[in-house]
Amino acid sequence: MAEGNNEAHGWAARDASGHLSPFNFSRRVPRDSDVTIKVLFCGLCHTDLHVIKNEWGNAMYPLVPGHEIVGFVTDVASGVTKFKAGDNVGVGYFVDSCRSCESCSKGYESYCPQLVETSNGVDLHDGATTQGGFSDVIIVSQDYAVRVPATLPLAGAAPLLCAGVTVFSPMVQYGLNSPGKHLGVVGLGGLGHVAVKFGKAFGMTVTVISTSPSKRQEAVELLGADAFLVSRDAEQMKAAAATMECVIDTVSAEHPVAPLLELLKPLGQMVVVGLPAKPLEVPAFSLVGGGKRVAGSGGGGVGECQAMLDFAGEHGIVADVEVVGMDYVNTAIERLERNDVRYRFVVDVAGSKLGVDSA
Amino acid sequence: MAEGNNEAHGWAARDASGHLSPFNFSRRVPRDSDVTIKVLFCGLCHTDLHVIKNEWGNAMYPLVPGHEIVGFVTDVASGVTKFKAGDNVGVGYFVDSCRSCESCSKGYESYCPQLVETSNGVDLHDGATTQGGFSDVIIVSQDYAVRVPATLPLAGAAPLLCAGVTVFSPMVQYGLNSPGKHLGVVGLGGLGHVAVKFGKAFGMTVTVISTSPSKRQEAVELLGADAFLVSRDAEQMKAAAATMECVIDTVSAEHPVAPLLELLKPLGQMVVVGLPAKPLEVPAFSLVGGGKRVAGSGGGGVGECQAMLDFAGEHGIVADVEVVGMDYVNTAIERLERNDVRYRFVVDVAGSKLGVDSA
Repeated sequence: MAEGNNEAHGWAARDASGHLSPFNFSRRVPRDSDVTIKVLFCGLCHTDLHVIKNEWGNAMYPLVPGHEIVGFVTDVASGVTKFKAGDNVGVGYFVDSCRSCESCSKGYESYCPQLVETSNGVDLHDGATTQGGFSDVIIVSQDYAVRVPATLPLAGAAPLLCAGVTVFSPMVQYGLNSPGKHLGVVGLGGLGHVAVKFGKAFGMTVTVISTSPSKRQEAVELLGADAFLVSRDAEQMKAAAATMECVIDTVSAEHPVAPLLELLKPLGQMVVVGLPAKPLEVPAFSLVGGGKRVAGSGGGGVGECQAMLDFAGEHGIVADVEVVGMDYVNTAIERLERNDVRYRFVVDVAGSKLGVDSA
Repeated sequence: MAEGNNEAHGWAARDASGHLSPFNFSRRVPRDSDVTIKVLFCGLCHTDLHVIKNEWGNAMYPLVPGHEIVGFVTDVASGVTKFKAGDNVGVGYFVDSCRSCESCSKGYESYCPQLVETSNGVDLHDGATTQGGFSDVIIVSQDYAVRVPATLPLAGAAPLLCAGVTVFSPMVQYGLNSPGKHLGVVGLGGLGHVAVKFGKAFGMTVTVISTSPSKRQEAVELLGADAFLVSRDAEQMKAAAATMECVIDTVSAEHPVAPLLELLKPLGQMVVVGLPAKPLEVPAFSLVGGGKRVAGSGGGGVGECQAMLDFAGEHGIVADVEVVGMDYVNTAIERLERNDVRYRFVVDVAGSKLGVDSA
C-alpha cells in the first residue's frame, strides 16, 4: 500500500449518546511489520457499549468501535514474515503492548500497563487514537494479528477474538480444561455460551447456572450443557453444593457470588470474567474454609488467542451469532443493552455501506 | 498405657463466658496406631476464643481448648511405626479425617468434610467429643502427629502447629516462596509475624502492611521485614502499587481489601487466611483488569505441617511468644481479645497446676 492511500471508511460515535454514523478517516502509514487487513466481520461486545457512551470516562470522539475482527490480509509490509496476502486473520481487543514488561514476556499481553486497545487506544509510537473494526480496513503489526483456521465460518469466528479468548485463557490457565472435571458456567451470554462449548470440547461436565429458568432448554439442547441450575432456586443450588471443580462467572450485572462459591469443591477455582460495577461480596469463611480461589481474567495474550482459534478450528467451535448490516448497528446496540441477542451480534462489515459519500 | 489409666487433667470452659477452670476427664483407650503424648506447651489461638465463647454456635461444654500442641511421646500402641517414646511431637488443629476424600488423598486434610478438630471435634469412631491441648496428656493417631525438630525451642514451636502451617501452606501452594519475589504481609499478629519470618527465610523481599504506624520498628528491626506500609496512608499505598507478586492477608477484623489488591502486580496472588465476619469487598475491575487472584487458605495438611516444621528447624524459625502459666490463661484470653500480645501466648502446660484436686 502506497503512502497516502490509507483512507478508511467506517461508522463512529461522535458523543456520549453512543450513536454510530458513517465516518471517513485515515489509517496509519504501514510500518515495517504491519499487515493491512480488509475487515469482513466484526462482533459487537458489551465493552464497546461502555466505551462509546463514555461510561468509563475515557472516550475519544469520533470513536470507531469494534475489536472482534476477522478479515483477510490485502498487503504486507517489508518486514512481515508471519502472513501473506489472502490469509484469513483476526484482531482482538488490543493491537500493541510494550513487549518488554513481565506480562508481555510471559505471553499475557492483555495485562501490559501500556496496552494499546484496538479502539479508543493510544498508539505507543505516534500518540494517535486507534480506531476499531467497524471499518473497511485496519492496519496492525503482524505480532498482534492471529491466523483464523480455514475450517471456521468467519462470522461466527469473529466473537472468538474477544469473547472466546476471554473464557479460553483462564480455562487453560487454571486447569479448567481437564476431561471429567465439572465446570459451572454462570450466565449464558456472549461469553457464557462460548465457555459451554469449550468446556464440552475439553471433555468436561458442564452445568449452566442462570437466573432465567427459560434458558434451560437452549443450554442443554442447543449448546450441549449436561445440566442447568436456576441460581435463585436455593434447593437446586444446595443439591449441587461442593460438586464443581470450577465455576466461570460471566455475569456483569450485580449478583451474589457467595452461592456460587458453595458450588465449588474444596480447593475449587472460580474465575470472574464479568465486570459488575459494585464489588463482589466474597465471604472469607467460604474462601478459607474450603481453600477456595477466585481469580479475575481479562482478555488473553496473543499466543493464547492463537491457541484458542486453533482449538476452535479443530473442534468446529464458533459463537452463535446474529449477523446484521452496519445500518442496523444502532438497533443492535439497543438490543444488546437489554440482552436481546443469542448470543452475539456480528456486523457484516464488508457487506455494508461504510463511511461518508465523497460525492 | 493400660486401659483405665487414661485420666487427664486440664482446664475447660463450661459455658459461653469462655472462662476456663480446672477439669478432670478421660482420654480414650489407645487404639492400635495411637501415640500418647505428654503435653509440654500449647499455644492460644484466636480460634480458641471463638469456640470457647460459642461464637460459632457449636460449642460442646465442658470444652478443653488448645490446638497448638508440643510435647513428647510417652507411650506407643502396637501399630505405631512413626514414633517412639521420648520423641518430640506436635499436634495441630485436627486429629483425624476421613482419609479417603479428594482433599485427604491430595494431602490437604484440613479441607476434609469429616475433619475431626483437636478440640470440640467429634471422633469418627466413637462419637466422643475431642478435648484439646490445655491438658497434661493427649492421645492421637500417629498419622495426625508430626515430628518437632530437635533444634527448635518447644515453647516457640507450639504456635507453628497452627499459625505456622496456616501461612506456610498457601505460601508454598501459591509459589509465594520464591527468592526475589516481593511479599506483602498484612497484619502483624500471630499469623503475620510468622509469615514475615518464612518470607525472609524463603529469600523474598517482605513488606509489612499494617494500620498501626507503631509497628514499623518491630516489623523491620525485630522481624527483619524489608519495608513497612501504613495501610491508611493513601500516598504510601499508591507508591507501592503494582510492586508485589503476592500479599498474604492475616487480618480477621473488617478491613478494605481493594487497596491491597492494588499492591499486586498483574497476575498477582492474594491469600486470605484471616476470617472477617463480613464478606470481603472485591472489585471485579481490579481482579479482571490485572488477572489477579484471591485464594483462601485454612490450616494445612499433615504433610505440609511436617514440611513446615522441617523448614522451620533448618532456618531456626519459631514464633515470638509470651509463655504463661495456666493460672494466667483467662487473663491471656482477655489480652488476646484486644490484641495485647507479641505475638502469641503459649501456656506452659507441663509447668502448670492442672485439673481438680482429687483429695
